[in-house]
Amino acid sequence: MRMKLGELVNHLKGQLKNGDPEMIIQGIAPFDHAQPGWITFAIDKKILPRINETCADAIICSRQLEDRPDIEKTLIIVDNPYASFARAAQLFLPPAPSPTGIHKHATVAESITLGKNISIQPGVVIGNNTTIGDNVIIRANTVIGDKVTIGNDTLIYPNVTILDNCQIGSRVIIHSGTVIGCDGFGFAPDGNTYEKVPQSGIVRIDDDVELGANNTIDRATFGQTWIKQGVKTDNQVHIAHNVVIGENSLLVAQVGIAGSAKLGKHCIVAGQAGLSGHLTVGNNVTIGPKAGVAQSIKDNQVVSGNVAMPHQIWLKVQTIIPKLPEIKKQLARLEKTMAAWSEKTNS
Amino acid sequence: MRMKLGELVNHLKGQLKNGDPEMIIQGIAPFDHAQPGWITFAIDKKILPRINETCADAIICSRQLEDRPDIEKTLIIVDNPYASFARAAQLFLPPAPSPTGIHKHATVAESITLGKNISIQPGVVIGNNTTIGDNVIIRANTVIGDKVTIGNDTLIYPNVTILDNCQIGSRVIIHSGTVIGCDGFGFAPDGNTYEKVPQSGIVRIDDDVELGANNTIDRATFGQTWIKQGVKTDNQVHIAHNVVIGENSLLVAQVGIAGSAKLGKHCIVAGQAGLSGHLTVGNNVTIGPKAGVAQSIKDNQVVSGNVAMPHQIWLKVQTIIPKLPEIKKQLARLEKTMAAWSEKTNS
Amino acid sequence: MRMKLGELVNHLKGQLKNGDPEMIIQGIAPFDHAQPGWITFAIDKKILPRINETCADAIICSRQLEDRPDIEKTLIIVDNPYASFARAAQLFLPPAPSPTGIHKHATVAESITLGKNISIQPGVVIGNNTTIGDNVIIRANTVIGDKVTIGNDTLIYPNVTILDNCQIGSRVIIHSGTVIGCDGFGFAPDGNTYEKVPQSGIVRIDDDVELGANNTIDRATFGQTWIKQGVKTDNQVHIAHNVVIGENSLLVAQVGIAGSAKLGKHCIVAGQAGLSGHLTVGNNVTIGPKAGVAQSIKDNQVVSGNVAMPHQIWLKVQTIIPKLPEIKKQLARLEKTMAAWSEKTNS
Repeated sequence: MRMKLGELVNHLKGQLKNGDPEMIIQGIAPFDHAQPGWITFAIDKKILPRINETCADAIICSRQLEDRPDIEKTLIIVDNPYASFARAAQLFLPPAPSPTGIHKHATVAESITLGKNISIQPGVVIGNNTTIGDNVIIRANTVIGDKVTIGNDTLIYPNVTILDNCQIGSRVIIHSGTVIGCDGFGFAPDGNTYEKVPQSGIVRIDDDVELGANNTIDRATFGQTWIKQGVKTDNQVHIAHNVVIGENSLLVAQVGIAGSAKLGKHCIVAGQAGLSGHLTVGNNVTIGPKAGVAQSIKDNQVVSGNVAMPHQIWLKVQTIIPKLPEIKKQLARLEKTMAAWSEKTNS
Repeated sequence: MRMKLGELVNHLKGQLKNGDPEMIIQGIAPFDHAQPGWITFAIDKKILPRINETCADAIICSRQLEDRPDIEKTLIIVDNPYASFARAAQLFLPPAPSPTGIHKHATVAESITLGKNISIQPGVVIGNNTTIGDNVIIRANTVIGDKVTIGNDTLIYPNVTILDNCQIGSRVIIHSGTVIGCDGFGFAPDGNTYEKVPQSGIVRIDDDVELGANNTIDRATFGQTWIKQGVKTDNQVHIAHNVVIGENSLLVAQVGIAGSAKLGKHCIVAGQAGLSGHLTVGNNVTIGPKAGVAQSIKDNQVVSGNVAMPHQIWLKVQTIIPKLPEIKKQLARLEKTMAAWSEKTNS
Repeated sequence: MRMKLGELVNHLKGQLKNGDPEMIIQGIAPFDHAQPGWITFAIDKKILPRINETCADAIICSRQLEDRPDIEKTLIIVDNPYASFARAAQLFLPPAPSPTGIHKHATVAESITLGKNISIQPGVVIGNNTTIGDNVIIRANTVIGDKVTIGNDTLIYPNVTILDNCQIGSRVIIHSGTVIGCDGFGFAPDGNTYEKVPQSGIVRIDDDVELGANNTIDRATFGQTWIKQGVKTDNQVHIAHNVVIGENSLLVAQVGIAGSAKLGKHCIVAGQAGLSGHLTVGNNVTIGPKAGVAQSIKDNQVVSGNVAMPHQIWLKVQTIIPKLPEIKKQLARLEKTMAAWSEKTNS
């Protein structure tokens, strides 16, 4: 990838300072690793005092740096340097190209419907009546069941499993080892044993979702488990049957969400947190790491701890918990003093 | 699937009220989604006031509804509506049929022993001297090692791994991404490094077990890791070497059980709970979500929290933890008052 | 495997007592399962009183037993019986042999470089310009991307995924379902949506590492995620982008380590513990089960609890937490008594 600096600045809707828009840019790297002809970015505040030390030819940065007189470097001034860096990196660090077509070692049902420019790699197995959009890449040894639909520009890494009837949107990324459409955990107690409750619903994954590696997303008992547009999950996330995850929510690694829970949009659930079943979490809610959420949460809350409480309280609680032995002693001391007084007074 | 209502009622050992046993039933769905010619079920109490509103032709329900005079609908009255619903759903929502035989893109050792009516799908790899029972379905890209035995009517989803010598029972279901027979975590410290302890035992999985997606079940160091009859695990459950899980116990998502722990029968371990190694949990024990079990537990206990305590205590504790900052202040106030008095008294 | 007892004793750098060095040894098993002609080991103290009861012909044990006059059995006296047992078991219980060569149902790019004596099993897919060392075993349905390097004597179990550019050392063992080189969880907030931050770094795994089943090791954003020599991970461990794990550290099952955290050497992180991002943990640190580590930790510490505190404090704290309801009542009682006195005094 080679691009004129001026074009890049336009692409980022930024403003060029001290630079030649005709200069050719051919890479992007962190501050200390960028080379001449590359760009870098000023996100970490630690580098600001030594901003002239990079070998990069231009620096994506915030408006804050606009008027610093000591800066000799070319600046690409933007409103949101982190997002602009991400967009620039998408240009200069695209995914490796994939061979087009169906590899001869893939096993694809005759009844599937294929878009244009697809890449189906070795060992892939695709079932009957599945529909795959344009520019979809399905990497090696991934298995896709019957009657699945996959939108355009979706990228599926190796060893993924997508089971029958599930619906995957466009521009979705699914990392390796993830299982979509496994049975929800439904068993009806019957004396000492259990009857399996068939899980006949589906998983629906909307556009622009990215699912990390080794996720498990259960199909609904009836209806659908629904991951809405723009949701991003980290690795080893578990989403149970009939869960709904609202638009643009983030689920960090090893989070588990129990059956029929509804999470609002633009939430963040930090690593190893767990949500009980059948509860409702509002929009813009942040749930701390390892939190155990046992009750519904309204919009705009920040909660932490197990059982989850308002985060401001948790911050205090977590400093007090290690002092519990001290507190217990203090209390015993007080009680003793009081008992002594009481005796004295009564005597 | 089409079935006479009377036959269905017999199958469920129920009692028909207001209905024609000759009526043909062809589906099952939740209360608001069932269509004419289908049945539904009254499990959720919320639907009871509007019981006549379903389009279903019959409703599986408990004896409680038998004498409600306002009900116009046909009722299938049973002792356990949830279990009966499950059994009915098993009839009307069977798994999709699988093609019989060994797919040409499967790689199967010549030395294996195959039952009747098996389905071995594309990309499956099966090692030497493995024995597979009747009606077994092995879906795409699953790998089965050498000298494995698999009972009748077992269903193995795509991308499962079953390693050498493991024994799988009949009517077992194993979901995608699950690994059975990986090495236990055994390393002998030797100065600053570790010597690997070979894991030469097996995993034994008894009849009627269902394992969720992306489980990991370690083989024993010597002997066997043993999942007994009727156990059901949710997704991302980890079971270490030499663990024994008793009959009909349920392990919810992301539970971890450390080496040589023994869990009794008919236990429930809720999501994200963890059990330390070498402990014994009795029968009919319930362990709460995120609980950390560090000691053995007797029969019939309910425990929660980390470290786990009796659940009734945990219910109180979890309301007090957020009040710790208040408690600390209260204590400081008391101490101050007392110190003031003490001064006053002594003066 | 058959070996003279004297050779075995030399191999273990031990000392033979009461034994014939010419005796042939052909197996190893636990105390109660060993057969004549086999050896066993005395690690569990429970067996010491009945040490003469084993059928084994020799017992690996510590110097402690050297002078016990009642012992009739042949002893192999070593400094570290657990490590010596492990080394003996490695001899007598080697992994099953693997067929040499590339199976015809593997899909291997022409541009790969292969060492001697490799085993590439059915369904394996290997991308372009990948280099694989001598004696490497890659079991069925594993996928290896482009430009990967794998050292000598490495063993990769079925259904593993190793993505482009990752570097795997020598004598590494990778268990099934593990994903190496999936994208780190990097998303730049941009209004209500997120821009993906491309993850262009690699994962580097040094020699003698063993990774359990269903691990996920993210590639770095830039640079490398680095698992240093001798690290062992249990199942379902998650390691985020740019993490560094020091030499010979152990990560027990279901541990999660967030982005850019640095863990020192010879640490132990117990099951289900979690480390926040960007922190530094020193050498020889032990982190308890389910601990939540939110701050950096110096060398040689033992911490537990959530949020993690010194383990000695946690041991007390965990006995006090269940007493919180009692403590709250005690406090209320004290306050009431005090208020009564105060009234009395003032009246």
